[in-house]
Amino acid sequence: MAFTLAEIAARFGGRVVGEPQVLIRQVGTLERAGEGQIAFLANPRYRAQLAATRAAAVIIAADAETLTARPCIVCDNPYAYFARVSQLFNPDAVAVPGVQPGAHVAAGAHIDALARVEAGATVEPGAVIGAGCWIGAGSFVGQGVALGEGCRLHPSVVVYAGCRIGARAILHSGAVIGADGFGIARDGERWVKVPQIGGVRIGDDVEIGANTTVDRGAIEDTVIEDGVKLDNQIQIGHNCRVGAHSAIAGCAGLAGSVSVGRRCTIGAGAIVLGHLSICDDAHVSADTVISRSIRKPGTYTGLFPFDDHRSWARNTALLRHLAELADRVRRLEQQLSQKDPPHG
Amino acid sequence: MAFTLAEIAARFGGRVVGEPQVLIRQVGTLERAGEGQIAFLANPRYRAQLAATRAAAVIIAADAETLTARPCIVCDNPYAYFARVSQLFNPDAVAVPGVQPGAHVAAGAHIDALARVEAGATVEPGAVIGAGCWIGAGSFVGQGVALGEGCRLHPSVVVYAGCRIGARAILHSGAVIGADGFGIARDGERWVKVPQIGGVRIGDDVEIGANTTVDRGAIEDTVIEDGVKLDNQIQIGHNCRVGAHSAIAGCAGLAGSVSVGRRCTIGAGAIVLGHLSICDDAHVSADTVISRSIRKPGTYTGLFPFDDHRSWARNTALLRHLAELADRVRRLEQQLSQKDPPHG
Amino acid sequence: MAFTLAEIAARFGGRVVGEPQVLIRQVGTLERAGEGQIAFLANPRYRAQLAATRAAAVIIAADAETLTARPCIVCDNPYAYFARVSQLFNPDAVAVPGVQPGAHVAAGAHIDALARVEAGATVEPGAVIGAGCWIGAGSFVGQGVALGEGCRLHPSVVVYAGCRIGARAILHSGAVIGADGFGIARDGERWVKVPQIGGVRIGDDVEIGANTTVDRGAIEDTVIEDGVKLDNQIQIGHNCRVGAHSAIAGCAGLAGSVSVGRRCTIGAGAIVLGHLSICDDAHVSADTVISRSIRKPGTYTGLFPFDDHRSWARNTALLRHLAELADRVRRLEQQLSQKDPPHG
Repeated sequence: MAFTLAEIAARFGGRVVGEPQVLIRQVGTLERAGEGQIAFLANPRYRAQLAATRAAAVIIAADAETLTARPCIVCDNPYAYFARVSQLFNPDAVAVPGVQPGAHVAAGAHIDALARVEAGATVEPGAVIGAGCWIGAGSFVGQGVALGEGCRLHPSVVVYAGCRIGARAILHSGAVIGADGFGIARDGERWVKVPQIGGVRIGDDVEIGANTTVDRGAIEDTVIEDGVKLDNQIQIGHNCRVGAHSAIAGCAGLAGSVSVGRRCTIGAGAIVLGHLSICDDAHVSADTVISRSIRKPGTYTGLFPFDDHRSWARNTALLRHLAELADRVRRLEQQLSQKDPPHG
Repeated sequence: MAFTLAEIAARFGGRVVGEPQVLIRQVGTLERAGEGQIAFLANPRYRAQLAATRAAAVIIAADAETLTARPCIVCDNPYAYFARVSQLFNPDAVAVPGVQPGAHVAAGAHIDALARVEAGATVEPGAVIGAGCWIGAGSFVGQGVALGEGCRLHPSVVVYAGCRIGARAILHSGAVIGADGFGIARDGERWVKVPQIGGVRIGDDVEIGANTTVDRGAIEDTVIEDGVKLDNQIQIGHNCRVGAHSAIAGCAGLAGSVSVGRRCTIGAGAIVLGHLSICDDAHVSADTVISRSIRKPGTYTGLFPFDDHRSWARNTALLRHLAELADRVRRLEQQLSQKDPPHG
Repeated sequence: MAFTLAEIAARFGGRVVGEPQVLIRQVGTLERAGEGQIAFLANPRYRAQLAATRAAAVIIAADAETLTARPCIVCDNPYAYFARVSQLFNPDAVAVPGVQPGAHVAAGAHIDALARVEAGATVEPGAVIGAGCWIGAGSFVGQGVALGEGCRLHPSVVVYAGCRIGARAILHSGAVIGADGFGIARDGERWVKVPQIGGVRIGDDVEIGANTTVDRGAIEDTVIEDGVKLDNQIQIGHNCRVGAHSAIAGCAGLAGSVSVGRRCTIGAGAIVLGHLSICDDAHVSADTVISRSIRKPGTYTGLFPFDDHRSWARNTALLRHLAELADRVRRLEQQLSQKDPPHG
């Protein structure tokens, strides 16, 4: 598979600068791309690599166009453009349909003729699996689960009974959808389990990373709307709602009944405490704990800064005495104002 | 299945206010429950929903009893009461006994006649599986593992060799019990692995969430006592002991050789550093790092507050200069006391 | 299996103090070891247990030698010495070769005659599995994966297509190697997926903990060098490089394109933000977020201290007003210097 720069621009837009007949066969990085490879510049951190790149061509924004003599495609959003070009050269693998020998498919499961179920996968009664779905080895699709068209479950994905997933979902290995939410009521010394009778509803075009967990609702459903992207090792508690086209980075967690708006981003390791709401277009930085609701779009941060251990120890010891420090400043202010009254 | 309010109160206690013959078929939320559904009020956050609820009845504490005209059951602990009512309407699924075709059960495994093992599950020699156990698809029960009566292993649970689990455990998908603890000794440039020859001992009535890991001990066992509840994505290091009826929320971690007392709670994302002890009835807030032992019951917190990014940046820059700020205050105090000596 | 102290010292070095013919059959802890068991003292925290130990012998450093009357082996690095002695008494289980019935092995997979593949495991076409490898139940080895000699994949490990792993790797259950990195490009409201066409390359003698995830590269490979040890629940983003003999504790995360040097340690729950570098021999404390590159060996910390909830609340409220506090101190300094000019 090979396309000229001109053909790529005809397909995806953008302006070709330099030789339009350069032939492209694959994508590459500015640092290592060579003949036949197209690279991109999106992160200014890598701007210095532009001068030395040997890429056959570069996808670039107008403001950096003059920094290289290589053939370019100039466009507004080089990273998204690059994503599309890479999709062109690296199309998704397509499932060869068929339930493989060694798959455990219940009599009452409905599997589209154009879906594939690998050996070692389990599909339970009442599950409905759409055309073009591909259920990986060792994956489990519980009773009454519905999967839209073209879903990819990589090996060892678990979808508990009754969950519903839209079209074109990608679920990576170890993802668990629909386990019981953490619903327990203290009663004297013991805990009483609250049955988790809600489900999980996932929209279209959602991707869920490896070992990410999305719990089923306590009474009503947990909801992941269209186009949401979840990285690895994320925990989504029961009855959360994640708004359309929001993205959450690795190791983040939403406690129970959290509502995240549309087009939000949540950074790596961030936590949102229970029952809080985050409005549309809010951005939570890495490692930030959201401890009250956010009602205004913007970026919110609560990352505690690191230092060399010795400086950290000296400064941090004072943190526990901040109230006293503030009191001392207040006393100084009082002393000075007594000495030096406004009308003195 | 349907019960009147009077029948429910006869079973679980509490005082019926309003029509005792109202028929209940399921639980619901204050916001959405309708005919035949009973809701509850436990979290004051939802008090405002009481006025508008269309629930057939509400489980409520005495102090909120007057806030609604709906039929009520008034009781001391509405959330625990609700849990029991929900269990009544939503009993656990019961396993139809039998080793299913496609299960890999070793000759030397002892599986009670009343247990069920799903296709694709593996049970190794010497494992003992009690009555009423249900081993999900793709789960693994290692050599010599003992499972008490009525344990539920959802799909894709792994229990390494030699671990012992009490009665009525619920293990969610992706939970891994008994993997090697992180025992490595630095020797020059390299690490030498310390064999992890202890096991994991889990008491009765323990629930372990999806993708939670409990490591086996280095020499002696890691211990999870009766009634402990662990949410998803938790890491319990080797040789930890978690006391009876403690509960740990998602994404938390205990490093090695940590001891947590009885009836403790540990919040989401909290970490307890290695070799520390937490006494009975201590409560650790979300995202708090416990860096010294806790010897007194109470609530402990170390959550760094978030802010809009700009305010955060301004305040946080000063954190690294806190020692200097304290020095400046000390100098001001000295200057003022020289000017204004106590006997001046 | 039993060895005298003299035989152990002949094998591993060190100096025997006391009866050299004491017979040792297993390792134990200072607290609980008895006849036939050898304990060790490495962590000063456990020094007090030395007086009361009933261990048959103790591995100890010279500076603690006089604190016990028990037979000893005195050596420079008691913990590493203990690790080797424990390996002697607790050798790794060795796989009995053979593809077991119920394993799903593709026609085009190359499995060494001395490897073992358990029932329920899947090996895809083009995978190459070296001598002495042991592929656990329910594990998945994708197309074209290469595993060096003596690798142990515990049950439910997933290795995506094209990843290469060196000799003697230990992968614990739930580990996922080679899932797609989190590559998404915002385009208007939606995200465009960036195909992840790089792989994962893992060196020799690497151990990867339960439920840890190592993502494949976006364009080039993610690299884990020789001798790296990863604990449980860790997330390694796409295109990271972890240098030889570094160790990372549980629940830590590396965002994308992070480079960690050789012989580093990263504490539990720590996070390194994207595109940053950490030099050789740097040590990151638990729960620390690395937000700029580290260029000098040393220990770096950013752990926010905890307190009882009330003290925490009082001190933390002031954190958000630190800039104002600094302003007030500055004003006080100005007032005082006006009153008391340097040449006053």
